[in-house]
Amino acid sequence: MAKNTNIRISLPAVCFVWQIAMIILFGVFIRYDEESDTHWIEHRRKKNISTNLENDFYYRYPSFQDVHVMIFVGFGFLMTFLKRYSFGGVGFNFLIAAFGIQWALLMQGWFHHLDEHDWKIKIGVENLINADFCVASCLIAYGACLGKVSPVQLMVLTLFGVTLFAVEEYIILELLHAKDAGGSMVIHTFGAYYGLTISWVLYRPLLSQSKHLQGSVYHSDVFAMIGTLFLWMYWPSFNSAIADHGDGQHRAVINTYLALASSVLTTFAISSISQNNGKLDMVHIQNATLAGGVAMGTASEFMITPYGSLIVGFCSGIVSTFGYLFLTPFMEKTLKIQDTCGIHNLHAMPGVIGGIVGAITAKGKLCGGYQAAALFVAIAFGLVGGALVGGILKLPIWGDPADVNCFDDDVYWEVPEEDENFLSRHPNMNHATSIPDV
Amino acid sequence: MAKNTNIRISLPAVCFVWQIAMIILFGVFIRYDEESDTHWIEHRRKKNISTNLENDFYYRYPSFQDVHVMIFVGFGFLMTFLKRYSFGGVGFNFLIAAFGIQWALLMQGWFHHLDEHDWKIKIGVENLINADFCVASCLIAYGACLGKVSPVQLMVLTLFGVTLFAVEEYIILELLHAKDAGGSMVIHTFGAYYGLTISWVLYRPLLSQSKHLQGSVYHSDVFAMIGTLFLWMYWPSFNSAIADHGDGQHRAVINTYLALASSVLTTFAISSISQNNGKLDMVHIQNATLAGGVAMGTASEFMITPYGSLIVGFCSGIVSTFGYLFLTPFMEKTLKIQDTCGIHNLHAMPGVIGGIVGAITAKGKLCGGYQAAALFVAIAFGLVGGALVGGILKLPIWGDPADVNCFDDDVYWEVPEEDENFLSRHPNMNHATSIPDV
Amino acid sequence: MAKNTNIRISLPAVCFVWQIAMIILFGVFIRYDEESDTHWIEHRRKKNISTNLENDFYYRYPSFQDVHVMIFVGFGFLMTFLKRYSFGGVGFNFLIAAFGIQWALLMQGWFHHLDEHDWKIKIGVENLINADFCVASCLIAYGACLGKVSPVQLMVLTLFGVTLFAVEEYIILELLHAKDAGGSMVIHTFGAYYGLTISWVLYRPLLSQSKHLQGSVYHSDVFAMIGTLFLWMYWPSFNSAIADHGDGQHRAVINTYLALASSVLTTFAISSISQNNGKLDMVHIQNATLAGGVAMGTASEFMITPYGSLIVGFCSGIVSTFGYLFLTPFMEKTLKIQDTCGIHNLHAMPGVIGGIVGAITAKGKLCGGYQAAALFVAIAFGLVGGALVGGILKLPIWGDPADVNCFDDDVYWEVPEEDENFLSRHPNMNHATSIPDV
Repeated sequence: MAKNTNIRISLPAVCFVWQIAMIILFGVFIRYDEESDTHWIEHRRKKNISTNLENDFYYRYPSFQDVHVMIFVGFGFLMTFLKRYSFGGVGFNFLIAAFGIQWALLMQGWFHHLDEHDWKIKIGVENLINADFCVASCLIAYGACLGKVSPVQLMVLTLFGVTLFAVEEYIILELLHAKDAGGSMVIHTFGAYYGLTISWVLYRPLLSQSKHLQGSVYHSDVFAMIGTLFLWMYWPSFNSAIADHGDGQHRAVINTYLALASSVLTTFAISSISQNNGKLDMVHIQNATLAGGVAMGTASEFMITPYGSLIVGFCSGIVSTFGYLFLTPFMEKTLKIQDTCGIHNLHAMPGVIGGIVGAITAKGKLCGGYQAAALFVAIAFGLVGGALVGGILKLPIWGDPADVNCFDDDVYWEVPEEDENFLSRHPNMNHATSIPDV
Repeated sequence: MAKNTNIRISLPAVCFVWQIAMIILFGVFIRYDEESDTHWIEHRRKKNISTNLENDFYYRYPSFQDVHVMIFVGFGFLMTFLKRYSFGGVGFNFLIAAFGIQWALLMQGWFHHLDEHDWKIKIGVENLINADFCVASCLIAYGACLGKVSPVQLMVLTLFGVTLFAVEEYIILELLHAKDAGGSMVIHTFGAYYGLTISWVLYRPLLSQSKHLQGSVYHSDVFAMIGTLFLWMYWPSFNSAIADHGDGQHRAVINTYLALASSVLTTFAISSISQNNGKLDMVHIQNATLAGGVAMGTASEFMITPYGSLIVGFCSGIVSTFGYLFLTPFMEKTLKIQDTCGIHNLHAMPGVIGGIVGAITAKGKLCGGYQAAALFVAIAFGLVGGALVGGILKLPIWGDPADVNCFDDDVYWEVPEEDENFLSRHPNMNHATSIPDV
Repeated sequence: MAKNTNIRISLPAVCFVWQIAMIILFGVFIRYDEESDTHWIEHRRKKNISTNLENDFYYRYPSFQDVHVMIFVGFGFLMTFLKRYSFGGVGFNFLIAAFGIQWALLMQGWFHHLDEHDWKIKIGVENLINADFCVASCLIAYGACLGKVSPVQLMVLTLFGVTLFAVEEYIILELLHAKDAGGSMVIHTFGAYYGLTISWVLYRPLLSQSKHLQGSVYHSDVFAMIGTLFLWMYWPSFNSAIADHGDGQHRAVINTYLALASSVLTTFAISSISQNNGKLDMVHIQNATLAGGVAMGTASEFMITPYGSLIVGFCSGIVSTFGYLFLTPFMEKTLKIQDTCGIHNLHAMPGVIGGIVGAITAKGKLCGGYQAAALFVAIAFGLVGGALVGGILKLPIWGDPADVNCFDDDVYWEVPEEDENFLSRHPNMNHATSIPDV
């Protein structure tokens, strides 16, 4: 029954081989674009650009940094809620995001930005944002698997996830010409179904053996709120980061701000009404409050009107909270899908809502059709890709934990041990108190 | 003695009714402004604007996001310091801010931005900042009531608080033509007296019954420092967010940066000198260090000079720390005002200092007089508004906790329980550890 | 053996005297520059500047705020990892940074920005960034001394540190005309050797008496990750904040982003390979992942190419992690240097790497020579300055703790005590479990 979780060879090997591969591929393919290269001055002169401020850097850098915070602190801390998996939550998020952004620059570059003259990918700040976006889909998928996979499996999940993302994104944005500035479909729907399918393939029938570790403690819930709030606050930047300069970015911010505010209220309402005593559940507050941002991803730039945004947030907050209440337990029991963070409720359903909203509000019947087609592409890539990658991750070579050791940082981390001398000298200390012997 | 704190009907009802009202009112009144609307391109052409960068979005978006962080993480985490009210601190802050910003867009819109031609409110990024500002006054008021009110009461407090704010702001900025870019008077003074008066009306004679929960524990104090630091760091953005383009915003940042730095030093000094052994008190460090930002709110744009800013911070740090040492206990005993977070010290007194500094440094005797009048308006609105709203909140229908249950998340939240099996299996763990019985 | 750690007179005295000195010196020397002064409008007209956006404020303010977050939350929370020194970590960081930025505005102003006509220092947003940079070097030095010095000693360390920094920076940037936009040499190398030399002078032979406090607990490690991530995410802003407008800032961001991503992977790899069971060590993840940012400080603006940046991060992550594994214990045992945070691994070695990378990639042999000379100046200032200041700090008048009381917040802070009534009423609570009845 005991599994070998020693990753002393495999993790360093994967990290080194892949990082060296990145260096070689970057050496062959990646260069600065005309706005980040010293040729910028000539470019300015040639194009008669009057000021350095017209460098795309100044349009997008503040949004980029906000997105960057969402990826590393937002997703990272949102996954610290488990009582003994905070290291793994924030730490593995850090690892796979740092790898994923490099691979995303290459994959997205090959599909979207390959210069036909010299076969180089020219990168600037918009590429950095897109790389962060791409990685977000893999971090969403991690949410379904949190606590049940090894870091090596996560690296594999990310390698294939980024690859699938780049293809899917190419089909949706370049072939179908669909709009999806904030990625309701491309990022959230794809990422969620990718992760859920992997989790379904990796189903653990005896996961209840680690049930005692599947909950939070008081302070881990407060840590998770750091993640929630940075995601919530910066979501307007997420949905506007690559929107059109000028009114496009401006409108995307307003729409997202309103949708998020609205979903907070319906989340609190449903959370309270669902308990006998009206008590609120931190799981809902940490997650479903964000549904408005997800659901506004496709239509963020559209003239959806301020009250339209409120309605989107209103509905998605309700749907997402109901998901945590009824769907997650149903999926676990009936569909054999174990979804640690409830990504189906936070990303899959609101993402699909976002895709539908986009299809409805897109101008013209044809556009609406292409938007709907895009949604199906995202779902299909998630399901098929997840099944394939799940199959690979099922091989018994990746060092994943036994069912009884899931959700335990002790498997992959040196966890600090309490010093008993310290305790006995400070008997009144608040963190290191004792259990009455019965 | 036992009170009914079941909010299973009232909280969802308030959330749903008010959110639906918001949707309807937004539908009737709120539209994009000319810079966030697709007409921006025509507007640019008509006004001969050469670049998208002149869209106000690019002047104000970075400041907006900083203010947004202050509202949700800054205020939210500052209120996590209590040992068992961190969920309520950060969670209810989240709820009322998300509601308040919607109501503020309407109220401030009706008073300041109503288009006379079509009776619509046209919103852009500056409105989002102003909505965040407006909500700040209600969050300040929450600080006085922290741990003693139900979320339904907080929703009522916010509904009326935003309403009062919009009227007071209209009188001060539009009728008196006073300057108050960072809101020393409009936000801090009003918000603080509003909250203090409510707390006075809701006086709880037997609050000492929950005294064991009125303190912090080690880690909750560290959580609160997250709030403190994000408020402190981003306060220059707060005081410059709606200042004039160009030198106005630039100067507001410098002045606020310096005032804040100065108040840190005097806070540490007074905190240390006030204890027999010179030990520092986290309550002072978490709060009084921010007094410089509050006190620089009115005059932030003025040519107050860099050393003038240092003097403002110097004085407000001292006054604020002395407030925590002497005034808060005095107010509780003598004036029957129970001020959980000490908002009198952090917002009321430094806010009044800010108003006075503004009146003194405003150009011209007349201007100075209007600034002084504005300060009185802010105080009056706080006192009278607080008395009225306090009266409403005293009705026995809002589900507030009994004196013995104050400051306890267990009343309104599902608090995670410790799993004893877990403990007994991990006897050496640092959070739930045991001391060997000798 | 017992030392007098009462700082009730000394700390307030230092804070007051120095803050008053700051006010006087600011009154004599510091004024707004032409972009933060009301004369900006005339300046614009005179120089024919078409828009307020050309005010340097709009080029640099977003980066400034990111740097500000790194100084106060980044460095502050990185130093919360000790189980009982989180208050001192984040609190004293706050104190000395707030003082240091004021003194830095003066010192850097005298050396770099003194107006020859009126002998005034004219400040704007770039000066604020530089002041934050300057203080960073002292916070790095604090890392070596964490837990072993009094706040009064830290104020002295900062006073001299800022002074030395300004001179060293003047020599490197103005006399040698070396490039160092992100301060690999000026900030990191200098700061690290300054702190290490001080720590060497203040060597404590019996420090093992407080060994029980030298580790982390589970939640303090998560707190430290807040610091790590904000440093990591915003490092591109650090290295680009004072880079040239346009492509310079743009390229610095790309290079730093890539170097950091790369060092994450090699850090995880070396951390895992170094343990028998492949388990990861939080100390490495919290620190060595940042080495790429440090090492990219000098060459951030250069045309170092994207894959060049990856290589820099690759190497510095390895070197830094090996430092934590082998060098820190070696230095403590053999060289008698006690380096609490391992700044030699995070700042000294990557800083030197950064200086060397700069010397190699600088255009022209001569430039390369000056870059190399700059590196020696930084090291020399650190060593000699540290020896002098260490000597001063060795005087028995500063209230530093006894060896047995190091790493204990209880020496300088009112630490909250657990309330026993609370415990006995909530026997199942996770944070406040009970004390065995004797």
